[in-house]
Amino acid sequence: MINQHCGVCSSADTTLQGFIASLDVETAHHRVKDQRAKCSFGLQGICCRLCSNGPCRVTPQSPRGVCGADADTIVARNFLRAVAAGAGCYIHVLENAAQTLKELSLTQGVFKGEAALNRLAAMLGIDEPDLHQKGVLVADRILADLYKPRFDKMEILEKLAYKPRFEVWKNLGILPGGAKSEVFDAIVKTSTNLSSDPVNMLFHCLTLGIATGLYGLALTNLVNDVIVGEPAIRVAPVGFRVIDEEYINIMLTGHQQAIFAYLQDRLIENDIYSRAQAAGAKGLRLIGCTCVGQDLQLRSQHCQDVFSGHVGNNFTSEAVIATGGIDLILSEFNCTLPGIESIADKMQVKMICLDDMAKKANADFLPYTFEDRKKIADRVINEAIESYQNRRHQVNVRIPKEHGHDDCVTGLSEISLKEFLGGSWQPLISLIVKGKIKGLAGVVGCSNLTAKGHDVFTVELTKELIQRNILVLSAGCSSGGLENVGLMSPGAAKLAGNELKEVCETLGIPPVLNFGPCLAIGRLEIIATEIAATLGVDIPNLPLVLSAPQWLEEQALADGAFGLALGLPLHLAQPPFVTGSKLVASVLTEQLLTITGGQIILEDDVTKAADKLEAIIAQKRTALGLL
Amino acid sequence: MINQHCGVCSSADTTLQGFIASLDVETAHHRVKDQRAKCSFGLQGICCRLCSNGPCRVTPQSPRGVCGADADTIVARNFLRAVAAGAGCYIHVLENAAQTLKELSLTQGVFKGEAALNRLAAMLGIDEPDLHQKGVLVADRILADLYKPRFDKMEILEKLAYKPRFEVWKNLGILPGGAKSEVFDAIVKTSTNLSSDPVNMLFHCLTLGIATGLYGLALTNLVNDVIVGEPAIRVAPVGFRVIDEEYINIMLTGHQQAIFAYLQDRLIENDIYSRAQAAGAKGLRLIGCTCVGQDLQLRSQHCQDVFSGHVGNNFTSEAVIATGGIDLILSEFNCTLPGIESIADKMQVKMICLDDMAKKANADFLPYTFEDRKKIADRVINEAIESYQNRRHQVNVRIPKEHGHDDCVTGLSEISLKEFLGGSWQPLISLIVKGKIKGLAGVVGCSNLTAKGHDVFTVELTKELIQRNILVLSAGCSSGGLENVGLMSPGAAKLAGNELKEVCETLGIPPVLNFGPCLAIGRLEIIATEIAATLGVDIPNLPLVLSAPQWLEEQALADGAFGLALGLPLHLAQPPFVTGSKLVASVLTEQLLTITGGQIILEDDVTKAADKLEAIIAQKRTALGLL
Repeated sequence: MINQHCGVCSSADTTLQGFIASLDVETAHHRVKDQRAKCSFGLQGICCRLCSNGPCRVTPQSPRGVCGADADTIVARNFLRAVAAGAGCYIHVLENAAQTLKELSLTQGVFKGEAALNRLAAMLGIDEPDLHQKGVLVADRILADLYKPRFDKMEILEKLAYKPRFEVWKNLGILPGGAKSEVFDAIVKTSTNLSSDPVNMLFHCLTLGIATGLYGLALTNLVNDVIVGEPAIRVAPVGFRVIDEEYINIMLTGHQQAIFAYLQDRLIENDIYSRAQAAGAKGLRLIGCTCVGQDLQLRSQHCQDVFSGHVGNNFTSEAVIATGGIDLILSEFNCTLPGIESIADKMQVKMICLDDMAKKANADFLPYTFEDRKKIADRVINEAIESYQNRRHQVNVRIPKEHGHDDCVTGLSEISLKEFLGGSWQPLISLIVKGKIKGLAGVVGCSNLTAKGHDVFTVELTKELIQRNILVLSAGCSSGGLENVGLMSPGAAKLAGNELKEVCETLGIPPVLNFGPCLAIGRLEIIATEIAATLGVDIPNLPLVLSAPQWLEEQALADGAFGLALGLPLHLAQPPFVTGSKLVASVLTEQLLTITGGQIILEDDVTKAADKLEAIIAQKRTALGLL
Repeated sequence: MINQHCGVCSSADTTLQGFIASLDVETAHHRVKDQRAKCSFGLQGICCRLCSNGPCRVTPQSPRGVCGADADTIVARNFLRAVAAGAGCYIHVLENAAQTLKELSLTQGVFKGEAALNRLAAMLGIDEPDLHQKGVLVADRILADLYKPRFDKMEILEKLAYKPRFEVWKNLGILPGGAKSEVFDAIVKTSTNLSSDPVNMLFHCLTLGIATGLYGLALTNLVNDVIVGEPAIRVAPVGFRVIDEEYINIMLTGHQQAIFAYLQDRLIENDIYSRAQAAGAKGLRLIGCTCVGQDLQLRSQHCQDVFSGHVGNNFTSEAVIATGGIDLILSEFNCTLPGIESIADKMQVKMICLDDMAKKANADFLPYTFEDRKKIADRVINEAIESYQNRRHQVNVRIPKEHGHDDCVTGLSEISLKEFLGGSWQPLISLIVKGKIKGLAGVVGCSNLTAKGHDVFTVELTKELIQRNILVLSAGCSSGGLENVGLMSPGAAKLAGNELKEVCETLGIPPVLNFGPCLAIGRLEIIATEIAATLGVDIPNLPLVLSAPQWLEEQALADGAFGLALGLPLHLAQPPFVTGSKLVASVLTEQLLTITGGQIILEDDVTKAADKLEAIIAQKRTALGLL
């Protein structure tokens, strides 16, 4: 995965790769080389450091840790803890979004997505004429569920879940109690000398997957739709070209768009505009990076004047700062790489962190609260202007403007796509029935630097799938990669197989649909549910596959657990750290098929992965009686 | 730490060591040998496996992980996650205890410690004449605090904390919000590409330490005192000798005595007694092991007929099962070693787990709820009788009856000790002022197999300290080790220095006081607080030191964080996995002194450790104007 010519990590995005290779700062792309030697115990998940008798490692000569834990227990423990942490991340984001909705409602604030609030309230069975009171009730219902004890099942869940799935989960005993308690208990369970039941721990992963999917993903989007405004399909620029050095540029990293709602509006008010001009700039702008950028892009209909566009995914962020065009970094969650610290220092970029979850060592910590939103926005704006004034004459700005595309199609959601199709899934279903679209593949999750390099596997697999007339839907850093190489621009239709190409050209859409941030995996689930309901089948019966080819984070593992709970096949190019346990590997890759219908497919070869996914789609089509 | 004669791990308890060496089953003591080779990255805490770009390891050639995290971030992240998991364990135990108190109250049940309830309610400012209603209010107040969001500070805390400490914590901004949310957020904070601020993470550890200490430790004891009855000073047998093969023996492992309250009473009712006799046994008995055994021993005044006594600590449990004298294992929390599974199978011992946190692969899971307590007790009794009948004629019973002591002094608490002293701490303070007792040392925490062997460091250090006229107070698996080698029997006075020996002989007490389980570290804190208040000084001014020489678990790290928040010196024979970060090591071992007053002292030599602790006591005496 190291490019032999330039010595940095290969990237599917060759312009980016060239730019990174030309930098005189160190990035993750450079460090891949130094971290090439991998610990085989860690890779297999068979190292345990839960106690002072350790670390213990499983070998043929020492098949158990000092305490007696075998590979199955150690692997399951490590895996559950990772899934729990990932689930916790999403639940944290939902909690903050719901809290913001509550306070916005209590203060009679403006909902940018009023229709979204009405839909959400209706979904939860809340019948309340006053809009703000409705917002409070919705938020309270969500928060109440999150804070239930584990023995108390979450109530909204049944309203969110597809009924056949709900029944499967209920019968398996994996319906989640209060989401925060489920995470909490998973952490306790995996502590020293507690659980040594791998199967119980894997079932707990499924429970966390359900909480992640229906709450952390789906509900978070629905709440954000109310606060920040609903996605609307449009064409937008992507890549480094969106950075305009004539503006004071605030780069965003994180996942919590709801907390920027006030700032967005404030940044383009007249007094601020005048101050920016007095400082010598054309104005202030937000530059999207990581999922929060994907999400703002999705909703960019509502913030065109202040949002420049999305530059790229997690492993693009260091290079974005290195352009010199960024004046302030505003971070509030992952994926905020530790590596940005030294580059920001070198480029004299002010860093402000709004949530201590993602505190960087050199960032000022300005804890976001709704109550303080105005004070915080003022401070951010002042710091950004000051930073611009202090640094621009000292730092060289070099932006690879040739990077990216102007015609990325964005704004897809379960609502906007259905509207685009005329208000029903039937046109899509018809295309699938006719075989014009062979099936659907969610290519989702992160970007990493190890599955052939930055976005390399994601892009190659996506090309293989569309070539086979499989429509790709993407959400997460994967979408950030796919859009930057042009696969989300209409012109990419030419890369699709003939049938899909025709569909795309007729509809004027790309063969890879951009749902934005990883949170939008929840939107894909809603689409799957609605299509399944239209067809009267369960989700595992759909010609739908998932791939998180370049999963990176603990959050991706929680997303994956959701996919498995949904009963979907989930391809990964790299295994999570579980291969040291035959039992755990077998449950995840085989046995789950007869339990939830889900299955992890490990395949590190692009063509073979596409073959396997295509074969599953073919199987599902046959079972549905489709040719 | 491997004994050259017998090939198993050395133990301070030579009878136990000999017995283990004679067994034909594998125990942790055997496996120490196989796990001798330790990973230096793991030991130093500089290995990270949070994402699929990893595992990454810090070396001079690769000082940062792929994401850019350096040793400081990686170490702090690993450490905070471990402290959070440990804190979570204690909070889980408190939550269950409070829930039991609530349900016991709601059903008008019997409080074995009515006076304890009145004291606790008074402490919380609850003025309610009806005893059961009082129980409900106390439980609700505790549960409400645990379930607060992180931005909402826990309310009881100010009532529990020593005022000067509370002010220090408040000024440092480390007062905990809702305990479950503090744990939850620490897990999120330490996930992939989130916090990279080591200092922020170390402060979070202190917050978790406060929540652990005042809630997980102190409050749990106070709640258990209500449900199970208060500790009363008495003499009790300890060691393998408490296992009587003529009884049907149920071994307990865990930390949640409250859930055995009903079972204890039921086991000695006439019908059960008759059934046991019909099966050929004299009756049914509980055999204590790990902290739940220590705790029942402490309260054994209330259950003399059914509780045989405490056999030993965590690393004694495998040998206990191997005697063949155990018919059923009832587990509900740690320290339930995975290693007991195979021995229980071989010895045909039925295993039942009451809390899935500690589910063993071969145990039946019978989730405890107060509502089902009768059904559960019946099932446990039936299974125990059946197991006795099935196995006793097939399995050889061999109990080393020479092991242990008949005259262990137990039942110490902040209440019973003060009563013993005549209702005031003044007599103890006078002895300290006069120099008859040079100071106090809490030798607490776990047992491990690595600090010179099983309980070896703990026992040697304790002997050194009492020889120097320092009174030792113990709580945790450390007390299980100390009592089994006779240091908690009055005869141990002869091992103390002349001054302390005289005190012990006059009062008829041993030089090492037995507070029971690790939870009772909370009792030591109350004693320290009351003595400090009597003297009108802050806790760090007391001639009081802590040592957790053989800390083992993540819980011990949370206990340690409490000690550091209290401003106490804390000795460890082995460092936690933090030595790979100069920053983290320096904060913990030096810089905290000027922040909270606390300090970790790393010393793996027994004499030097005692020298250092004695020197600190001498310093504190001087500062107080004592000779």
